[in-house]
Amino acid sequence: MKKHNYSAGPCILPQEVFEKSAQAILDFNHSGLSLLEISHRSKDFVAVMEEARALVLELLGLKGKGYQALFLAGGASLEFLMVPYNLMKENGKAAYLDTGTWASGAIKEAKHFGETVVIASSKEENYNHIPKNYSIPSDANYFHCTSNNTIFGTQMKSFPEVNIPVVCDMSSDIFSRVLDFSKFDLIYAGAQKNMGPAGTTLVIVKEEILGKTGRYIPSMLDYEKHIKAESMYNTPPVFPIYASLLTLQWLKNLGGISAIEKINNAKANLLYSEIDRNTLFKGTANAEDRSNMNATFLLNNKNHTELFDKMWAAAGISGLSGHRSVGGYRASMYNALPLESVQVLVNVMKELENKI
Amino acid sequence: MKKHNYSAGPCILPQEVFEKSAQAILDFNHSGLSLLEISHRSKDFVAVMEEARALVLELLGLKGKGYQALFLAGGASLEFLMVPYNLMKENGKAAYLDTGTWASGAIKEAKHFGETVVIASSKEENYNHIPKNYSIPSDANYFHCTSNNTIFGTQMKSFPEVNIPVVCDMSSDIFSRVLDFSKFDLIYAGAQKNMGPAGTTLVIVKEEILGKTGRYIPSMLDYEKHIKAESMYNTPPVFPIYASLLTLQWLKNLGGISAIEKINNAKANLLYSEIDRNTLFKGTANAEDRSNMNATFLLNNKNHTELFDKMWAAAGISGLSGHRSVGGYRASMYNALPLESVQVLVNVMKELENKI
Repeated sequence: MKKHNYSAGPCILPQEVFEKSAQAILDFNHSGLSLLEISHRSKDFVAVMEEARALVLELLGLKGKGYQALFLAGGASLEFLMVPYNLMKENGKAAYLDTGTWASGAIKEAKHFGETVVIASSKEENYNHIPKNYSIPSDANYFHCTSNNTIFGTQMKSFPEVNIPVVCDMSSDIFSRVLDFSKFDLIYAGAQKNMGPAGTTLVIVKEEILGKTGRYIPSMLDYEKHIKAESMYNTPPVFPIYASLLTLQWLKNLGGISAIEKINNAKANLLYSEIDRNTLFKGTANAEDRSNMNATFLLNNKNHTELFDKMWAAAGISGLSGHRSVGGYRASMYNALPLESVQVLVNVMKELENKI
Repeated sequence: MKKHNYSAGPCILPQEVFEKSAQAILDFNHSGLSLLEISHRSKDFVAVMEEARALVLELLGLKGKGYQALFLAGGASLEFLMVPYNLMKENGKAAYLDTGTWASGAIKEAKHFGETVVIASSKEENYNHIPKNYSIPSDANYFHCTSNNTIFGTQMKSFPEVNIPVVCDMSSDIFSRVLDFSKFDLIYAGAQKNMGPAGTTLVIVKEEILGKTGRYIPSMLDYEKHIKAESMYNTPPVFPIYASLLTLQWLKNLGGISAIEKINNAKANLLYSEIDRNTLFKGTANAEDRSNMNATFLLNNKNHTELFDKMWAAAGISGLSGHRSVGGYRASMYNALPLESVQVLVNVMKELENKI
């Protein structure tokens, strides 16, 4: 039976990425060798790394604008640490927007480096919205935000205009919508949503903001060292990077970010319209801040849970359970999820209404 | 043509690992989903993580002895930093043995944490041997060594008996030979030699040595946090860990470390005997410290280079060039390299002798 995979991450990727990456494990580039057994410094893999780094900048419209793209290891959680190491000055200050679990994780690590100002937080309302009308101290070394909050189903629709470096954790919505990415000075994202499988983290950094802290930075946490080594300071996670390249190539062939944005908007509109129309359900996030990637919603009557859960499982849907801190349901509609899968879910929601 | 892959790492893995991991990308456990698109917290992947962690301890004979195995991200180079963060006390001291490029990389990171004593070094002789007869300060917080030096082709055949925690970077020879692993308190190893593809790092730590530094440890660098989260503090590198499990299962089915050690000894004896017998070649490492994993050797007459290089390439051999800091040749004979491949190389060396 056809599966409709709503997993919040790692998540669905294009079928051609599965097929091509499996083939590369059996025989990479007709070399007679597996992708898994070749040196990361071999001509074939250096070409993968170079193409992936260039394609990231091309897709984001950042080519020739002073940015470098890195494919690192460790996960976005390691970036929570690398960001203050590389950007917060000795006795410096940083400004953070608290919009959820990942934002507060980033804040926790930064606090050990210097004054970490939480300029606004929606924690009191269980992160059901994105704070607005905050002010950002102009003497902060940088402003940090999280563009999409997977757990709470919120997404920043606009970003503040400031004169300090803007750092953004885009783990769960990078490559999903058109933004002026040149407004950001440092973007990071775990691969395992819209870019590839788990195991690599993308960092895009404007070079001119680096090297200014006066702080000692351990080698593996130093963006400048990774840039100098062309993202091969140590052995990179070869397979996750190759599968990410395949995913980026798929996106480019589809027409890039503006093309996928239209599809993502259509998917989100379809599902949110049903959540709002169907009297059995309600959304958990404030409507204006709803995420196009992760729709979080509840059954108004918990007694319908068992029936609804059976119905969507029977329709081939998986990964729909909400995070324990919100409960209910979470439909993650990343780039590779087809509109058809959203239609299947909406049909199940309508069927439930008809049955009750 | 059959390939004989001598790559120094990432390197050859068992053919069944390529086949099974490629299959899991197309359909994991007959779930209808790819291994790459499932949640790391799904029942199926949690089972992978648990089996991999347990199998590591079983193969090393460390089950029930107070150790924990972790599959982390970042590479062994990140452990250069995590080791002093977790083990060097505030105003503490650590003892390091300098046996090559990776050892000196570890020393460089430790120096920023406190007094880092290099108790012995073979750097002056281009690391052609393992230093002996050194003394280790008994007030050091730990002793750090590198069991095998890929670049220089040396391997520690014995380890000092000390009363302080022993930390060992076994990236390039773990699971290749029988040792009393319980003599070590912390072992780490990048996966990409004998354990799996690039993208995960194995850490085996005796729990009782942790939590004693009085030092603040960033979350992602804190072994105790990773242990508490059962090696899932953040999204782990799913595919590299699964492929590592397959490689460990292959090793277990083969008879474990004692079985592979016999094969590795046979391969090393075959090649070193030829290096010593054949008047055209000479080894670069002192005979008593020669690595069973990486044999480094030179042509006595550089004029034969072109002919030899053509001959081994024609025989299907790849990855035989030495590291730039040693030159010549490096034959990496990791667990998955069959004896047959070593015989092919030895035959080429004999043929060269016959031609000249």
